[in-house]
Amino acid sequence: MNIQEDCMSRAMPQHAYKMGIATHQEPLVYMRTDCAICRAEGYTANTRLQIKAGSRTLIATLNTVAKEILPPGSIGFSDSAWEFLALTQGQAVTVHHAPQVHSLSALRKKIYGHTLDTGEITSIIRDISRHLYSDIEIAGFISACAGGRLNSAETTALTRAMAQIGNQLHWPEHERVFDKHCIGGLPGNRTTPIVVSIASAAGLIIPKTSSRAITSPAGTADTMEVLTNVDLSLDRLRKVITRTGACLAAGGKVGLSPTDDLLIRIERALDLDSEGQLVASVLSKKMAAGSTHILIDMPVGPTAKLRSQKQAEVLAELFRVVAEALGLNVRCVMTDGTQTIGNGIGPAEEARDVLSVLRNESTAPADLEARALYLAGQLLSMATGADEAQALQQAREILHSGQAWIQFRAICEAQGGLREVPIASHHIELRSEYAGKLRSMDNRRLAHLAKLAGAPSSPEAGLRLRVKVGDSVEALQPLATLYAETPGELAYAREYFHENRDLFELSPATSPLPATEK
Amino acid sequence: MNIQEDCMSRAMPQHAYKMGIATHQEPLVYMRTDCAICRAEGYTANTRLQIKAGSRTLIATLNTVAKEILPPGSIGFSDSAWEFLALTQGQAVTVHHAPQVHSLSALRKKIYGHTLDTGEITSIIRDISRHLYSDIEIAGFISACAGGRLNSAETTALTRAMAQIGNQLHWPEHERVFDKHCIGGLPGNRTTPIVVSIASAAGLIIPKTSSRAITSPAGTADTMEVLTNVDLSLDRLRKVITRTGACLAAGGKVGLSPTDDLLIRIERALDLDSEGQLVASVLSKKMAAGSTHILIDMPVGPTAKLRSQKQAEVLAELFRVVAEALGLNVRCVMTDGTQTIGNGIGPAEEARDVLSVLRNESTAPADLEARALYLAGQLLSMATGADEAQALQQAREILHSGQAWIQFRAICEAQGGLREVPIASHHIELRSEYAGKLRSMDNRRLAHLAKLAGAPSSPEAGLRLRVKVGDSVEALQPLATLYAETPGELAYAREYFHENRDLFELSPATSPLPATEK
Repeated sequence: MNIQEDCMSRAMPQHAYKMGIATHQEPLVYMRTDCAICRAEGYTANTRLQIKAGSRTLIATLNTVAKEILPPGSIGFSDSAWEFLALTQGQAVTVHHAPQVHSLSALRKKIYGHTLDTGEITSIIRDISRHLYSDIEIAGFISACAGGRLNSAETTALTRAMAQIGNQLHWPEHERVFDKHCIGGLPGNRTTPIVVSIASAAGLIIPKTSSRAITSPAGTADTMEVLTNVDLSLDRLRKVITRTGACLAAGGKVGLSPTDDLLIRIERALDLDSEGQLVASVLSKKMAAGSTHILIDMPVGPTAKLRSQKQAEVLAELFRVVAEALGLNVRCVMTDGTQTIGNGIGPAEEARDVLSVLRNESTAPADLEARALYLAGQLLSMATGADEAQALQQAREILHSGQAWIQFRAICEAQGGLREVPIASHHIELRSEYAGKLRSMDNRRLAHLAKLAGAPSSPEAGLRLRVKVGDSVEALQPLATLYAETPGELAYAREYFHENRDLFELSPATSPLPATEK
Repeated sequence: MNIQEDCMSRAMPQHAYKMGIATHQEPLVYMRTDCAICRAEGYTANTRLQIKAGSRTLIATLNTVAKEILPPGSIGFSDSAWEFLALTQGQAVTVHHAPQVHSLSALRKKIYGHTLDTGEITSIIRDISRHLYSDIEIAGFISACAGGRLNSAETTALTRAMAQIGNQLHWPEHERVFDKHCIGGLPGNRTTPIVVSIASAAGLIIPKTSSRAITSPAGTADTMEVLTNVDLSLDRLRKVITRTGACLAAGGKVGLSPTDDLLIRIERALDLDSEGQLVASVLSKKMAAGSTHILIDMPVGPTAKLRSQKQAEVLAELFRVVAEALGLNVRCVMTDGTQTIGNGIGPAEEARDVLSVLRNESTAPADLEARALYLAGQLLSMATGADEAQALQQAREILHSGQAWIQFRAICEAQGGLREVPIASHHIELRSEYAGKLRSMDNRRLAHLAKLAGAPSSPEAGLRLRVKVGDSVEALQPLATLYAETPGELAYAREYFHENRDLFELSPATSPLPATEK
């Protein structure tokens, strides 16, 4: 039998139907197994489909539905698919087999351990940005690039490809535009709002956008969102910077290097944050924001993200090589990452620490202030060429005179107003079993504890540390307060603490209390 | 505020509700965003949950539903989740946060490029087999192990871990138990049913189970399923082998190395089939089946899975090292992989070729017969120690005397009866534009063409080649017949052929026909 060229039902429009199913970001569509199109086209569960609605196109994974949860002649959409296509109920859409995604052969080449050229990397990033990759395929890309398997040329290509997709800011009136970034892994290390306030009070242009947390209990964007509006449009962002010299916004909605967000979602699911991806993620955002001079803070410590000086040097070298290839000026500084900075972990608790430093309160955590001043000094010395001691002194004067606090409020006002820090619904004290001296704290497990309590999706969730390394601790003395928005999360986090009491290491270990008093 | 230990709602039973949504294998559960448990526990889209129903436990990913598609107090299940838990409508189930999956830290270690020890690999495989990994996490594992990044010790550990989970066959009465496996990548290379028939007719024990296709248009199991029942229980399989000395079954339902099937599903989605995984996949099935002597057929050719002699030697060496560590006897033979074997591609078309060889029909593809005889001869020489020429002669006599055909029918009868090969609903001829001599065919693109037509999920879909390399071809002469079960798939595959006409390379290229006659 011969078939006619145009007998295919696949272009026959279907009616859009909102399923009311939230699937996080992966777009899903639903069709009835008994529908003519599924049968004629051989669509089955997990088939990748291309949906066209007006001028918009989406590639989504099919789930087939057997029962009457979908009216005949309709195609159902998950919430994210619905939003991406900006659909209205009943709107006509057409369904096709997803086109071949040519860059997938480059992906497989990378998975097999080969080096990719600029064109191949660009094609992968372009196709990811167009939502042509499934979650499984993005996971393959992330995993294949981890463990130092992206070389500096590949990382450069990745950075440029990511920076060139989405929005871009340009600052023709400014020769030098500044930014700072912390590699993370150190809970509570929330210096950015302080550093940005000091630097912009000193006259630097610093268009700072931050990610939300990847694997940590709070990113700077999560912390700033407790204090003000961080989801700015590109226009609004530009106005805030023009008015104040700076901003403290979330990267998400501004659309600077938006592909990064698609990658980060899968990195988060895998709890991974690899070198090449990290450099590309950081520098692509800065490039797209129009920055030219970037300070990279690299905390080094046994339980920080960078565990050794050597590991930090390898990363710093990759930053330098890639930055040079892209015409950016980068300074990497290695800082102490042996313990948490400040006393709060989690968005709201970290916001409290930031405010107390900016307000020069006597209870402000001294370590957070010292760290912020050091970084602000580094930025000022990059800008003015002053020696580091002079620049540090200038930063200190700006903070202690209250200029930084005035500047911080100006930025928050420009972004939509300064908010009160909220208080968590539930909390308990985490107490020591023993008396002794606090020898160390495990940053990773502290971060995990705060995440189990609900941070960062519940901004009030997290920890407030009540002790510092070196402190003497009595038996039953509170080591930290644990905050959560739900009793379930609080209990879940507490259970983890009880199984991981050694995350606070006391020395010398004296005999534990009788079991009944624990 | 302090909360009581037992105030949590998370153990409160919910009623199971079958959503009627097919999601392929990834288990999904659905809960209403407005339900008390979601709110109290902080469950959101993509949260991993542990569901208990009677004595069964499942880890599944949550999708939240906003509308009335789920009755209050209910938790919805995708089809695969429903089946895994063997639920009945309204059955009480309990929902918890998924427990920490400890082996995920070993997974990240592997992704970061480190070597895993036996315990770490065993823990990953055990957790995958318990359905504790999401698709994204399995994709990370597959990708991290590809590209030669599993060393031989890791591959040995992986093989043993996979073989030890699930069912196992033991053959205490037989000192030597045989098997054969083809590395694949060569469409139509369906020698197994012929080789197994010859070898078992000669008295060898050969408990052959086959995978379905991973990245090809048909696996041996897909082809055999056209001819007989291949989904046997372990008991039935044992009986078939005891009666006939062999079987030609699918690996799936027998439960030999079942974790392999969970990995293969994601390898298929990524269109990947890497070295270490491949060796572990093959040898774990053979070990679990109780085999001791295994012949590995390695077709080498520019468009086969193994593209060079060197690549084949590396793989053969890995097979030998791992087999030795596991106490198995492996012989690897490299065969010609420059063109397809037989004339059919796709389950039904390959089955036709197999039958014609076994029946000694004059139209039987000579290349398929020669290949099958060569491999059967190798197996017989492994068994008897006879030299290869003698063993080949023995294999030829068994085939040409009709003993192999009798044995094949006996195996099919024991498995449930021999079936007629079905005929596809739709077909078209793929014709040459030019006259010329056929210089080469691209195996990979031929395989892709058959897959676009619907193979292997539609067993009738695929190709029948009408020409061989070296043949002279007239303009408009059919090069192949394309079969499909739906007009959509037929048109889709034809479109690909028109964009990829050079997959049949003709030489010398004479001038094309005028456009109107194409």
